[in-house]
Amino acid sequence: MKVTALAGGVGGAKLLIGLDQLEADTTAIINTADDAEMYGVHVCPDIDICTYWLAGLADTERGWGLQDDSFEVIDALGKLGVEDWFRLGDRDFATCLRRTDLLASGETLTGATELIRRALGVQMALIPMSDDPVRTRIGTTDGRTLDFQEYFVKHRCEPGVAEVRFAGIADAKPAPGVIESIRSADLVVICPSNPVVSIGPILALPEIRETLIEHPRVAGVSPIIAGAALKGPAAEMLGAQGEEVSAAGVAKLYSDLLDVFVVDLADRDHTHAIEELGIDVRVTDTVMTDAAASLRLASSLL
Amino acid sequence: MKVTALAGGVGGAKLLIGLDQLEADTTAIINTADDAEMYGVHVCPDIDICTYWLAGLADTERGWGLQDDSFEVIDALGKLGVEDWFRLGDRDFATCLRRTDLLASGETLTGATELIRRALGVQMALIPMSDDPVRTRIGTTDGRTLDFQEYFVKHRCEPGVAEVRFAGIADAKPAPGVIESIRSADLVVICPSNPVVSIGPILALPEIRETLIEHPRVAGVSPIIAGAALKGPAAEMLGAQGEEVSAAGVAKLYSDLLDVFVVDLADRDHTHAIEELGIDVRVTDTVMTDAAASLRLASSLL
Repeated sequence: MKVTALAGGVGGAKLLIGLDQLEADTTAIINTADDAEMYGVHVCPDIDICTYWLAGLADTERGWGLQDDSFEVIDALGKLGVEDWFRLGDRDFATCLRRTDLLASGETLTGATELIRRALGVQMALIPMSDDPVRTRIGTTDGRTLDFQEYFVKHRCEPGVAEVRFAGIADAKPAPGVIESIRSADLVVICPSNPVVSIGPILALPEIRETLIEHPRVAGVSPIIAGAALKGPAAEMLGAQGEEVSAAGVAKLYSDLLDVFVVDLADRDHTHAIEELGIDVRVTDTVMTDAAASLRLASSLL
Repeated sequence: MKVTALAGGVGGAKLLIGLDQLEADTTAIINTADDAEMYGVHVCPDIDICTYWLAGLADTERGWGLQDDSFEVIDALGKLGVEDWFRLGDRDFATCLRRTDLLASGETLTGATELIRRALGVQMALIPMSDDPVRTRIGTTDGRTLDFQEYFVKHRCEPGVAEVRFAGIADAKPAPGVIESIRSADLVVICPSNPVVSIGPILALPEIRETLIEHPRVAGVSPIIAGAALKGPAAEMLGAQGEEVSAAGVAKLYSDLLDVFVVDLADRDHTHAIEELGIDVRVTDTVMTDAAASLRLASSLL
């Protein structure tokens, strides 16, 4: 069975490690709109989170970076007068240095991602959503425009969100293999990642949404449980976009694509509202507290 | 009193920390021909050795890098399949990342060097010999051409040296301030650095040799003691160039520039041969075993 999953950061990574334990041939298409150039290296937070989780190297407690990583480089950069709020670990730096060097020598982001995930022993195919630069910019309620990592890490999601833009999206193409992997998949899974800034950019790329609309089996998992996100600013962002902050609100965003939506037990009373959008609903425990829970949720999707 | 010193790596750094302890306004002009692009960062071994020694941060035992540095990044790069023979430490990586980022944003190497030495608390003015790329290439006796760091670090100076070239030297200009600092100096010091690959590239830049010839007070310190270098491949390289491997042989290389040459006690019998070149000779203990010895040698120069 071929599965293609659309994923962002931790929520995506957790479902991917479930899918990785199954007898399925899974390809993950990963958001790159929160990529950033930091300290001269090309940082791909979502690709790296997924890679590290699948490699068994992630700091799963903290939700970012590598287990037992040290912070010598970033601390030394701080002493050299560099703003050090983006706490990239030393081994995480190595990943980014390797990627940056590969890109500088003419490799695509797809090629670099492939080389790195193989070197770290990841079996699953990981494809960045695009080899072209797309960057999420947050327009704040006090009139500033922040890069996503500034908003997310430096300002800890504190500024009010007025607008979310994906700079470069009009000129970006899906990476090689993205459209094909969706077309040839027996099942497409939209992971429980932030619908605005993780899944949103992937869906905003040309052809992807159309390809998903045509696909007969697209299943999503709600990232919103009982009106809140488990992690990250998904709730605030949905609210800022004038969307309902609920499983049904997310289902509405995906209503043209979804064939089935998996919501948490806490949201069983949303079933009717979602079914009214023409989407089948499955109710289950969607909180992935460990690898076993990831496996259970992934199995229920298949 | 204004002093301008021409310096390479450890031998240069040791004399600079002596000069730094004196009541002199010293500017160091530092070799950049052994710079390299490694792992996507711009490495300046000689600039960094001098900076770290002057900042009191150098690993003076090992002779390169920072005291108590860790090697997480380079080890992780190795696991990602990268050749890891150039053992850049984590905090050393930070220096190189900072430099690379500054260069990418349009800063010159002179500007980047200035920012980094100030951030690390170094008082002495440090100027790279040139902002333009010059790269030492070693032609080996078995017909290979190696970058200097390949020859020096990867192959541990083992290949026979047939030829030493400075790629880019014809198009390189002395960095801003280099010529002026030589002209305005009361004393120019040629540090006991490798005459072929450390001092050689500086002297090969246009205008520098002429400016030194015109200068009335140029003093050198012999890097060769009793027919051998304290450290590094200076002896092999002099031999490969058909030069005499001795204090007198080095004096001959500098004979058009030098007003006085300081040789070690072990080489007192070279005095006459050097004086015949029209160079005054001072005989003293030139082995800088610690900061006090560096200070003694620097004082004797002044």
